[in-house]
Amino acid sequence: MADHLAQPLAAPLFERLVIVGVGLIGSSLLRAARQRNLARHLVAADFSAAVCARVTELGIADEVTSDAKAAVVNADLVILCTPVGAIGAVAAEIAPHLASGVILSDVGSVKGAVVSAVQPHLPAAVHFIPAHPVAGTEYSGPDAGFSTLFLDRWCILTPPEGVDISAVAKLQSFWSEVGSNVEVMTPAHHDLVLAITSHVPHLIAYNIVGTAADLEAVTQSEVIKFSAGGFRDFTRIAASDPTMWRDIFLNNRDAVLEVLGRFNEDLAALQRMIRWGDGQGLHDLFTRTRAIRRSIIAQGQETPSADFGRRGPDSGEASKEGSQ
Amino acid sequence: MADHLAQPLAAPLFERLVIVGVGLIGSSLLRAARQRNLARHLVAADFSAAVCARVTELGIADEVTSDAKAAVVNADLVILCTPVGAIGAVAAEIAPHLASGVILSDVGSVKGAVVSAVQPHLPAAVHFIPAHPVAGTEYSGPDAGFSTLFLDRWCILTPPEGVDISAVAKLQSFWSEVGSNVEVMTPAHHDLVLAITSHVPHLIAYNIVGTAADLEAVTQSEVIKFSAGGFRDFTRIAASDPTMWRDIFLNNRDAVLEVLGRFNEDLAALQRMIRWGDGQGLHDLFTRTRAIRRSIIAQGQETPSADFGRRGPDSGEASKEGSQ
Repeated sequence: MADHLAQPLAAPLFERLVIVGVGLIGSSLLRAARQRNLARHLVAADFSAAVCARVTELGIADEVTSDAKAAVVNADLVILCTPVGAIGAVAAEIAPHLASGVILSDVGSVKGAVVSAVQPHLPAAVHFIPAHPVAGTEYSGPDAGFSTLFLDRWCILTPPEGVDISAVAKLQSFWSEVGSNVEVMTPAHHDLVLAITSHVPHLIAYNIVGTAADLEAVTQSEVIKFSAGGFRDFTRIAASDPTMWRDIFLNNRDAVLEVLGRFNEDLAALQRMIRWGDGQGLHDLFTRTRAIRRSIIAQGQETPSADFGRRGPDSGEASKEGSQ
Repeated sequence: MADHLAQPLAAPLFERLVIVGVGLIGSSLLRAARQRNLARHLVAADFSAAVCARVTELGIADEVTSDAKAAVVNADLVILCTPVGAIGAVAAEIAPHLASGVILSDVGSVKGAVVSAVQPHLPAAVHFIPAHPVAGTEYSGPDAGFSTLFLDRWCILTPPEGVDISAVAKLQSFWSEVGSNVEVMTPAHHDLVLAITSHVPHLIAYNIVGTAADLEAVTQSEVIKFSAGGFRDFTRIAASDPTMWRDIFLNNRDAVLEVLGRFNEDLAALQRMIRWGDGQGLHDLFTRTRAIRRSIIAQGQETPSADFGRRGPDSGEASKEGSQ
């Protein structure tokens, strides 16, 4: 366990933190907030009775409710952790009940569409500061969360112009305390950066897995058997939550289509190199991409361990322990 | 360490095993062969003096030489582990020196082109049985190898019609002893299966990393910082050996272009769903791909640990130890 998360704060940053939507991210935030003593009172709100029951069993909140409207009254920090497609409706529902001076944030993977969906519903006295922690696994639901999910990952804030500076600083502290590095940018830039680093990679992973499933000449059993040749790397991200990802593509359409257009152009060039036997062109590209990988490892966003140690239950268990 | 590899054989399967080309795969074979006592005499042949020097230091062979012609005399098993593009030239060079009854094999990731490049050079008394262990990491060179690389992975044999059955059985035993499951198929079917499970996934991974590097509006530093959102999964396979991969694409052109054509069609359909807001179509695909992931985990070709436990040096070390 990292030293960073060992010591809880002497005095909490917030009095009443309400997490609306308790999936992978929401439940990880509750766990991290309790471990670090970031809020005096932790409230989990979820519209699903089954999720509420499970969160109660897990014991990761002081209060569990399906009534988000009642939960947010008197809260000084509310974080919407629902899929992006549901955020506008949730904001409309809770907006009249938000206290003056509350910080309202979210964790959505797109920001432009979230701002458009949420901002119109809010009273002026609410500090709305959208956020996106760039962290996650391919699992979903309250059981999938863990307190170190955000450790050494980046959290992007996209505060609107004119928002209260001290509110931004306070939300920034919150994310620092759960272990993240914080960066500030505009919603439009966020959406382009994430289109290339996350959304289009997911899209092409989903696509190749679908193409493989549809190939008549190769059986599904063969695809699975021989997946160690590279394919399985794609299936991991193609196993991510379908609703979350549907919403991301519908809500970051322009940036995704822009990046996808470039991807397609580049792929056509590569396809042509293969057809015409341009070995030098292929070798040049493959050398260049190798260097980028080295930078990612050097900057701590990946471990250098070969093949992620996927070779046996031992290493799997070790990594699970390391992450709880 | 798996029980399977704990006990060396009482009597070796082969008298003299020559590995030509000592990179990741060749050095892993030498290590596994020694650990399991699969050959009485282990010979490493490599045209690079630097590689020979390093292999001597590593102590993973009984004999190290840059003269493959001399090395193969009296060998009863020769495995060519060079990049696919060099295999034909190597075969032409050693062919006159091969003993009658020797088993000649390889580990190339394409099989049709290897058969065409090698077969014409061989005397009739040589049993040529191409092979492809579907195993590897993104690292290369003799230091990158380890004895359990092939454990629980699949090795595909593509014996030509009319080849000696007992020679096939003996090579099959060799691969079983290093821990692999063995499957037999035709070279053409192999090349199509690998195009979808390995070659096209690598190609699109190389491509997305290249696209990201060229995006003017997003800095390379941003791509690296926020790579945890999915991009880093692609950089791992886009860091694989450039020469090996150039050779694969040049030598499996037809199958790669066929699968790539289907990938492009499917991606165009997906792109259209995003443009027209077809949420149901996206959700359906994303649900289907999730099920394929579950099958891969169920069949032991992947661990279920979230995110491969990439969250700290601890888990990285544990998995390295597990794999040596």
